[in-house]
Amino acid sequence: MKTKKVAIVGASGYSGEELVKLLLSHPHAELVAVTSRQNAGQTLAQVFPKFASHPKSKSLRFVEPSAALLAQQAEVVFLALPHGVAAEFAVPLLAAGCAVIDLSADFRLKSAAIYKDFYGHDHPAPELLPKAVYGLPEVYREEIRESLLIASPGCYPTSILLPTIPLLKAGLIQPRGIIADSLSGVTGAGRKAEIDYLFCECNESVRPYGVPKHRHLSEIEEQLGFAAGTPVVIQFTPHLIPVNRGILSTLYLTPAQPLASAAEAAAFAEKISACYAAAYAQEPFVRLLEGKALPDTKNVVGTNVCEIAWRVDPRAGRLIVMSAEDNLVKGASGQAVQSLNLIAGWPETAGLI
Amino acid sequence: MKTKKVAIVGASGYSGEELVKLLLSHPHAELVAVTSRQNAGQTLAQVFPKFASHPKSKSLRFVEPSAALLAQQAEVVFLALPHGVAAEFAVPLLAAGCAVIDLSADFRLKSAAIYKDFYGHDHPAPELLPKAVYGLPEVYREEIRESLLIASPGCYPTSILLPTIPLLKAGLIQPRGIIADSLSGVTGAGRKAEIDYLFCECNESVRPYGVPKHRHLSEIEEQLGFAAGTPVVIQFTPHLIPVNRGILSTLYLTPAQPLASAAEAAAFAEKISACYAAAYAQEPFVRLLEGKALPDTKNVVGTNVCEIAWRVDPRAGRLIVMSAEDNLVKGASGQAVQSLNLIAGWPETAGLI
Amino acid sequence: MKTKKVAIVGASGYSGEELVKLLLSHPHAELVAVTSRQNAGQTLAQVFPKFASHPKSKSLRFVEPSAALLAQQAEVVFLALPHGVAAEFAVPLLAAGCAVIDLSADFRLKSAAIYKDFYGHDHPAPELLPKAVYGLPEVYREEIRESLLIASPGCYPTSILLPTIPLLKAGLIQPRGIIADSLSGVTGAGRKAEIDYLFCECNESVRPYGVPKHRHLSEIEEQLGFAAGTPVVIQFTPHLIPVNRGILSTLYLTPAQPLASAAEAAAFAEKISACYAAAYAQEPFVRLLEGKALPDTKNVVGTNVCEIAWRVDPRAGRLIVMSAEDNLVKGASGQAVQSLNLIAGWPETAGLI
Amino acid sequence: MKTKKVAIVGASGYSGEELVKLLLSHPHAELVAVTSRQNAGQTLAQVFPKFASHPKSKSLRFVEPSAALLAQQAEVVFLALPHGVAAEFAVPLLAAGCAVIDLSADFRLKSAAIYKDFYGHDHPAPELLPKAVYGLPEVYREEIRESLLIASPGCYPTSILLPTIPLLKAGLIQPRGIIADSLSGVTGAGRKAEIDYLFCECNESVRPYGVPKHRHLSEIEEQLGFAAGTPVVIQFTPHLIPVNRGILSTLYLTPAQPLASAAEAAAFAEKISACYAAAYAQEPFVRLLEGKALPDTKNVVGTNVCEIAWRVDPRAGRLIVMSAEDNLVKGASGQAVQSLNLIAGWPETAGLI
Repeated sequence: MKTKKVAIVGASGYSGEELVKLLLSHPHAELVAVTSRQNAGQTLAQVFPKFASHPKSKSLRFVEPSAALLAQQAEVVFLALPHGVAAEFAVPLLAAGCAVIDLSADFRLKSAAIYKDFYGHDHPAPELLPKAVYGLPEVYREEIRESLLIASPGCYPTSILLPTIPLLKAGLIQPRGIIADSLSGVTGAGRKAEIDYLFCECNESVRPYGVPKHRHLSEIEEQLGFAAGTPVVIQFTPHLIPVNRGILSTLYLTPAQPLASAAEAAAFAEKISACYAAAYAQEPFVRLLEGKALPDTKNVVGTNVCEIAWRVDPRAGRLIVMSAEDNLVKGASGQAVQSLNLIAGWPETAGLI
Repeated sequence: MKTKKVAIVGASGYSGEELVKLLLSHPHAELVAVTSRQNAGQTLAQVFPKFASHPKSKSLRFVEPSAALLAQQAEVVFLALPHGVAAEFAVPLLAAGCAVIDLSADFRLKSAAIYKDFYGHDHPAPELLPKAVYGLPEVYREEIRESLLIASPGCYPTSILLPTIPLLKAGLIQPRGIIADSLSGVTGAGRKAEIDYLFCECNESVRPYGVPKHRHLSEIEEQLGFAAGTPVVIQFTPHLIPVNRGILSTLYLTPAQPLASAAEAAAFAEKISACYAAAYAQEPFVRLLEGKALPDTKNVVGTNVCEIAWRVDPRAGRLIVMSAEDNLVKGASGQAVQSLNLIAGWPETAGLI
Repeated sequence: MKTKKVAIVGASGYSGEELVKLLLSHPHAELVAVTSRQNAGQTLAQVFPKFASHPKSKSLRFVEPSAALLAQQAEVVFLALPHGVAAEFAVPLLAAGCAVIDLSADFRLKSAAIYKDFYGHDHPAPELLPKAVYGLPEVYREEIRESLLIASPGCYPTSILLPTIPLLKAGLIQPRGIIADSLSGVTGAGRKAEIDYLFCECNESVRPYGVPKHRHLSEIEEQLGFAAGTPVVIQFTPHLIPVNRGILSTLYLTPAQPLASAAEAAAFAEKISACYAAAYAQEPFVRLLEGKALPDTKNVVGTNVCEIAWRVDPRAGRLIVMSAEDNLVKGASGQAVQSLNLIAGWPETAGLI
Repeated sequence: MKTKKVAIVGASGYSGEELVKLLLSHPHAELVAVTSRQNAGQTLAQVFPKFASHPKSKSLRFVEPSAALLAQQAEVVFLALPHGVAAEFAVPLLAAGCAVIDLSADFRLKSAAIYKDFYGHDHPAPELLPKAVYGLPEVYREEIRESLLIASPGCYPTSILLPTIPLLKAGLIQPRGIIADSLSGVTGAGRKAEIDYLFCECNESVRPYGVPKHRHLSEIEEQLGFAAGTPVVIQFTPHLIPVNRGILSTLYLTPAQPLASAAEAAAFAEKISACYAAAYAQEPFVRLLEGKALPDTKNVVGTNVCEIAWRVDPRAGRLIVMSAEDNLVKGASGQAVQSLNLIAGWPETAGLI
């Protein structure tokens, strides 16, 4: 299979590090460049001792990020940068003919106005928004294959959209009143030297944050709106939990029709199961849980899998859906590699577990 | 101040251990007996090395539980036993004139039928249910003072009832559609030798459980119904989180009147603040958070305090209330000692922080 | 490359689970049977949800262990059983022509007398001891290739022997006075439902145990004796640390000749570096740390690598060597697969990272 | 009992926060001032929500540190500052008649030369060194009572000195060849925004650091030298462990006389027990473990207790002593309050558990 040269811009954060790991062991991708302002000049082995056993770790050195240089070296460039900065790199890379897989929020929204509302500044390259494809392969597989600009979804959005989109598309739930309660490991905050994320501030601590208007709401609502065919406004509460990795989302959904009896509740449960099976039974990275099993982040950490389970609650008349994923893999770098596989025409599961 | 002799039945679990800690250092209570089948014959110092510096730890020995004996030794007996078993001890102790503070679920419900529905067996002493007082001092302070049988609330219920009851009583929220999403530390599962609660099964793991019909629902709904003046059915999802102690509950509530504008949302927020201030500003163990602060379990662990914060979400038209408590203190043993203080006529905060 | 059929006896513990993981993804081994008394009848996917995405996980079922049956199905059998029990399976399997890779302590010692002294019962099959090879590939690579009975080393011993054996062989350190201070993650205790290993008993706890005569001493001392050419008695203190995986060993060693000056200390340091480089520079699974780097379990967890760093302390006249490994990989299942690769004539690194 | 006004300089770090906690609830001390450059102007409740229930938390505000002002307000001043800076505050405070309890390293050594060797700069106030008393009450109780300048010991030193000093004084162990292997929780690194101490860098990680010449060696060796009556050089290896609090030290000691037989080993063990009993049986904050018990940080965290256990290893001819303490309490702020109690003439255990 034809290999492709790939590069990572911003490779010293947690998502960047996970990309390095996935791409070093990828059967078809060749990692040719990694950038990092603070680590420029150092080898992969020096910055990440855990990769020191890889043959490339002592020859591959971090360089200062330069779009011109990267465009000469790589065919596909991953951007693991803060929002705002990512767009600045994307523009020249795309112009030079590279494919860009952006892990930031810069190209996830179709609306530059909503971007400004949630991110607080004008969009740096609004002309590119129509060209970008939202990199959720289970929903936009064919579009990703044809695109040169992939906006890889956020970690929370992935855990919320995968369980919700098929139900909205099938009209099984109401588009109003959706609540997403999410719990995230601390890598979600990035490798930032801030007091709030010190070991002793997070360990033995559980806390909500960003209530009630977290930035990820914008892309979640936009995507849910596409699925529902009508604007969707949801309630979203993220919490910080003392684990390194993993997101657990609990979704509170309202059936399209009230469940007036036990029989109706049972029939509704059947429809949900059928809907999920139709959407995901053949998906390599969505695992529908059976029987009494409920999602557990420890069963997905280190993999590109999103686990989903659901329960109808006839007492309260609601559907509860629970999902688990690794925020750095299916929620970030693994999903980005899944898009790479699609772009490159490789098996979609190449280099992923 | 007059001291009282107190005993703990079932003192080797986590709640029992916390009771031992609180009562050993209590200024007015005298701990005269601790029971435990598996530790009978051993001293407190042997079973709990952490208490070995206390003068009493080498003389006080665990004994086999015997209601007859306890009734002779103690004026107040704490029951830290499984449901079903607790009632069996309560009957003879009450008959012998002891006050009983029960940390199990046995006397929390007024309805023996609901007890059977949720606990799967007939109530062992239904004749006592009318005499029991639900031991939530912020709600039933005066009744507790006059009672000999206190049903100390469950950990999840405390974290849900304290933030919700004042709002329901004031008619500020609808009694329908309440959702409680709760995160609990692992002591909540008790000191049980089960694979599910091993370090390596809980560490780096986040998972829901008991969906959708956890036993604590029964007492939560009964108490909310009393506050609302109408039956209440809620949605409740507990999750297990890798911390030793702490519960964080996030409550999704619907304003009694829809919030049609930003002005209405602001006015509603004012009413919520005023309602909480009226209910809790003078309460020693409820802390209303101000400004940008949100609850964090690490700020309440080891204390009898329940932290509460709230946000109106005008986009989704909901009220989100978040609470944090130590499941072993305000959620169990501390609250039980708070009831003891009321029964005994001591300052309500004696021996508690 | 020719595949081999392999089986795992005792596949439901932590080492067994890690073997399942490694063998499911091994490029040349074919996992044909897994046994477990408590899980017999269930599929891999049911017992280990995390493997549910593997195609084999829904067809491969746990069976009751039976040496006769296993001998028909598999060419190589891994024993992940308690000591004593393992030998009982090894005898018939070897007789039937299978190769056996035993992860228990049963065949690690050459002396049945020392076995009895440390394990408290007669050796179940002393006639096999001379045939067994100690499965430390960095030391016994050629013998492993030729053997049908591999005694895979213990987790602590691996972390202590790899750093010490080359120094003893080279005569650089004294065989007397060796101290090994080791810290282990909780998977080292096995998947056992015991109070001591509950989350709440291990989290926020650090504690020594098994002082001063842990069972692993026997194999450590026997192997060190072989390297030194003289009996070796060491001091070994294991500690339990709240991490899932990882062993960090700190070794206190005495230079063969006293270091009388800074110049002698520097020359000694050079010799140590040269000795380690000669022993391990080409080894795929030993990483000699350079510069200021010190071992960190997080850099080896999930890999078959043992990290080693060393410092000469001229003030105290000692050599300190520190090593880190994943107790379940290089300390157990990964190392066992490394032996499988040697036995089967595959690349030694096949299926390992 | 007469109260004293006390102040804390540098109250926003972990030791400072623990001092705030202890002094807010101290029965005789009155906390009148807390300083912090970054938090100046904020109340205790704002900076430390966990103290918000204390009546003083809303009136007491952090101020910029000023020795002149503090000297007017307080009779005793705690310095929880970095070394070098502490001495600058101590000079004017002492001149103004305040007692100073310094938690930094500035006054722990008698030798300004050794200070320079280990801390890399000239001592800022060498003239005060002879006046300072090393604040280890179990060793220097009477001197502390009479002093106005207490150099409160470091966390590692406390855990090493308490178990070692009595044995050296009694001549039971050799002053040569002492090894201290210590494990510390992450609060030991201070509340510093550094990548190395982020949750995700410490969680699931165990690592040595500062090998072989950690700064704490200087005060450990000086104090051991005083006890032995001869200069002592030891080996000390600190490790960082993923717990918030707690130090576990394992000490490898050589008996003064070789143990030639089991009988001699038994006799030696008796002497050790007798020596410890004589030194510590009456000490409120040293707990000598009996029977099979070994130290566990979880049994001392939150208390001012240091646990000690010991084992003679007749095979290796060594004595192993293990100690556990809370690095922020007995290893820092608790011990400082213990000194305050001595200075003020209050019961030594006042405000401490």
